[in-house]
Amino acid sequence: MNNFRLNMPTEIFFGKDQIEVLGKRLKNENVKSVLLVYGKGSIKRSGLYDRIISQLAENLIKVTELPGIDPNPRISSVAKGAELCRENNVDFIIAAGAGSVIDKAGDKIIPLGAVLTMAGTGSEMNGGCVLTNEKTMEKLPTGSFRLKPKFSILDPTYTFSVSKSQTAAGIADITSHVFEQYFSYPDASLQDHMSEAVLKTVIENAPVVLEEPENYEARANIMWAGTIALNDLLELGKDGDWATHLIEHELSAKYDITHGVGLAILTPNWMKHVLDEKNCYKFAAYGRNVWGITEKDDMKAALQAIEKTSGFFRSLGLPQKLSEIGIDDSKFEEMAASALKNCPIGRFKPLSQEDIVEIYRMSL
Amino acid sequence: MNNFRLNMPTEIFFGKDQIEVLGKRLKNENVKSVLLVYGKGSIKRSGLYDRIISQLAENLIKVTELPGIDPNPRISSVAKGAELCRENNVDFIIAAGAGSVIDKAGDKIIPLGAVLTMAGTGSEMNGGCVLTNEKTMEKLPTGSFRLKPKFSILDPTYTFSVSKSQTAAGIADITSHVFEQYFSYPDASLQDHMSEAVLKTVIENAPVVLEEPENYEARANIMWAGTIALNDLLELGKDGDWATHLIEHELSAKYDITHGVGLAILTPNWMKHVLDEKNCYKFAAYGRNVWGITEKDDMKAALQAIEKTSGFFRSLGLPQKLSEIGIDDSKFEEMAASALKNCPIGRFKPLSQEDIVEIYRMSL
Repeated sequence: MNNFRLNMPTEIFFGKDQIEVLGKRLKNENVKSVLLVYGKGSIKRSGLYDRIISQLAENLIKVTELPGIDPNPRISSVAKGAELCRENNVDFIIAAGAGSVIDKAGDKIIPLGAVLTMAGTGSEMNGGCVLTNEKTMEKLPTGSFRLKPKFSILDPTYTFSVSKSQTAAGIADITSHVFEQYFSYPDASLQDHMSEAVLKTVIENAPVVLEEPENYEARANIMWAGTIALNDLLELGKDGDWATHLIEHELSAKYDITHGVGLAILTPNWMKHVLDEKNCYKFAAYGRNVWGITEKDDMKAALQAIEKTSGFFRSLGLPQKLSEIGIDDSKFEEMAASALKNCPIGRFKPLSQEDIVEIYRMSL
Repeated sequence: MNNFRLNMPTEIFFGKDQIEVLGKRLKNENVKSVLLVYGKGSIKRSGLYDRIISQLAENLIKVTELPGIDPNPRISSVAKGAELCRENNVDFIIAAGAGSVIDKAGDKIIPLGAVLTMAGTGSEMNGGCVLTNEKTMEKLPTGSFRLKPKFSILDPTYTFSVSKSQTAAGIADITSHVFEQYFSYPDASLQDHMSEAVLKTVIENAPVVLEEPENYEARANIMWAGTIALNDLLELGKDGDWATHLIEHELSAKYDITHGVGLAILTPNWMKHVLDEKNCYKFAAYGRNVWGITEKDDMKAALQAIEKTSGFFRSLGLPQKLSEIGIDDSKFEEMAASALKNCPIGRFKPLSQEDIVEIYRMSL
């Protein structure tokens, strides 16, 4: 296990009607002026918007609104948010929505509170964010400890109305976060077993939320799994891989596809491409501990585990191939070069430009 | 899943030589005067004492010492600590040692930093503490969010010198913490799978640390398992049972035995006593997911799982019966009555005074 430092300053309020703590929590921070950041209006249809506004009004807190944040948030909207903050002496940002809204809101070092409406990115408890530069069509991850929210409100009922396809994409995102940390060196007994725990939870609860979108318990389990999947715990003392995420960011930057859909297509092909005699023990452990595979031979168990992974994404109703979502091979070389521009990719197994093109090709 | 609030303010520095952050970390808090609390001197023999003192001296921080804290810390030493804090304008407490030292130090609301030297109690990241009133011979748990350490330094090499029997007792304590939270209602998919992850980690690494006390990786895995076992994560949205702990506290208050030894003796008998048709599914899940039991019938799988649990404690070299550690049945009624004096016991299955006496009797 590598040495590590753990700092989790985000306070979590989890469960039905926890939005009721918002006003009091902000009052405790002595907040006077809030920037309310949200997406395309689903929080108005769900009634969440009204509940936030009334909490703020009751506590005499000024509200400035920044609506319309995209699923792949743009750098230009960051500039607009900064301007609104200056003009209105904003001393706290409330981000209500999915990870894209929370990521967008986190880019200024003004304290942030999040009200999560979709499980997936883990933005509610981490300091990472991903922004798209719409001029260069690049999608770039950034992050800082200081970007972690002060508090996040997680009410599973807000995810009841998330569509089947978006729910599935969020689930693919959660599983991918776990894979990026699980398939990494050095092994770490507890962190790796906890990764398996998150995967088992997701696999058990995914069919339930897809069949019964208003099943509170299953929505709660998926939501909390999304948080634990990316709040540092699974990566402590390990060097996460993150290759699949970096390769996928090229796709969603160039084609504006849903991040989780790209991950679901690429992940099994990344697995097949990197699998070798040296690392097959790890895929075998995944297969045995998560999928109950009983095969004794590591390489055979590993291949079965990858099959199970493909089958899981298929069971979510997600596309299986890039060609299904209108992507052809015309930009594979360009995207692979772009992915490698800023840093080497793949710490579990380093990937060359040819490797990346090959993974895109296997995904076609 | 019940609604929950999660707040983990303790910063963790984990790994070899992390003690080097101490001076700088205290300087960041603008600390001027420290109370250094420790036990019977093992930190002097290991060299940890010298490293702490030199860090404090380099940063011109005044040091007052409170040595000699017992494994079952007494209320009288709390009074002494409070007096020292007043006399020396102490603005930060450093607790260096096992859980008993950290628990002792936590009783004043002066910020606390911990340097852990034994895995077991989880005191390095929680706000609970247990103190013994030596006049009434009562051992009482208490706790507050405000008692959580500001930071804790966890260097597994400090546990290399912990004796085989103390290591085993710490491991029993860790597993018991998990059982108290796992065997509880309502079920919570991720929390319960994470409990299984901690148990698997402990079971895999326990034989290694007992055979090779200086195996860094195994000591690190046990140490981190001890932290995760009792830092709130496993109990979120659940009503922990804690019956075995409360029954054991009577034993260690009356007989001054090692807490983990008492737990190892009582736990399998608590399991056998509370097992019934309604809850056997939970013991069966434990057996299948942690021990790989393949038995399909829940009650049979549950009984096998309890057998595995006894066998595990036996493999640690811990006593199996109260009679082996000099305890007879003369105070069973008195201890059972005392255990129930302050509150009902057992939220997984409520225990009457007769139930408690029966569990003691089964353990004789």
